[in-house]
Amino acid sequence: MADMKFSVSAKREGPALVRVQARNFSMYVDEPANLGGSDKGANPVEYLLGALAGCLNVVANLVANEMNIELRGMTIEAEGDLNPGRFSGKSMEERAGFKQIRVTLNPDLQADEATKRKWLETIEQRCPLSDNLTNPTPVKITLA
Amino acid sequence: MADMKFSVSAKREGPALVRVQARNFSMYVDEPANLGGSDKGANPVEYLLGALAGCLNVVANLVANEMNIELRGMTIEAEGDLNPGRFSGKSMEERAGFKQIRVTLNPDLQADEATKRKWLETIEQRCPLSDNLTNPTPVKITLA
Repeated sequence: MADMKFSVSAKREGPALVRVQARNFSMYVDEPANLGGSDKGANPVEYLLGALAGCLNVVANLVANEMNIELRGMTIEAEGDLNPGRFSGKSMEERAGFKQIRVTLNPDLQADEATKRKWLETIEQRCPLSDNLTNPTPVKITLA
Repeated sequence: MADMKFSVSAKREGPALVRVQARNFSMYVDEPANLGGSDKGANPVEYLLGALAGCLNVVANLVANEMNIELRGMTIEAEGDLNPGRFSGKSMEERAGFKQIRVTLNPDLQADEATKRKWLETIEQRCPLSDNLTNPTPVKITLA
């Protein structure tokens, strides 16, 4: 299959605020006041968790269809902890981002336990967001 | 510094659609029609790129302040290529997610070239999203 390209454009509207355009969709990424922002939108790591939840849902449905099991509904909780020391410049001891991300899937799925485990395992192997988080992804940043 | 926890809740509203709640903010994560969705929002990998752009902006401003240089404005372009083979279940040869992410920062920054390079280097070391992408991040998924 051919590679697919995805892209976004963002414009700074404040010290912590950008307006992001992705095709015909726009979103504000900001920070709450305690992190120096104007709280006009979710913050970057919340968008990351939302992206992961959305990606898991897409693949969960795809894999359920392939396995001929019906996914009637699902809720997803995602959370992570990070230490703000490096981000804020106060300490370089810990990593900047989430140390671990925990996700709980609560699917309405008519299947036995072994089938559910196989379903989950397949989702993890095929979710683009899971891959980009769990495995190193080169990020090349250049100045225009 | 103490760790900080961030979390989101998501609910499946369609085979490719979730509504994500992050504090008082909600977002739709979907896929375009050619990827099996109803196109009610940006897709997961576009949210990922938007999160990265937002995160780079926050840290860019923080570091500019620390270096006593004025960041008056900035645009950010972010893009990546992925092969949909693994995602779609057609081939397990390539990774599921972005092979590489490319970001172009176009800052309105009054500084010489060496200062700009130092600024960019510091941003890369302290951005949580850059860290979570370039270095492995454990993702633990459990079924409720």
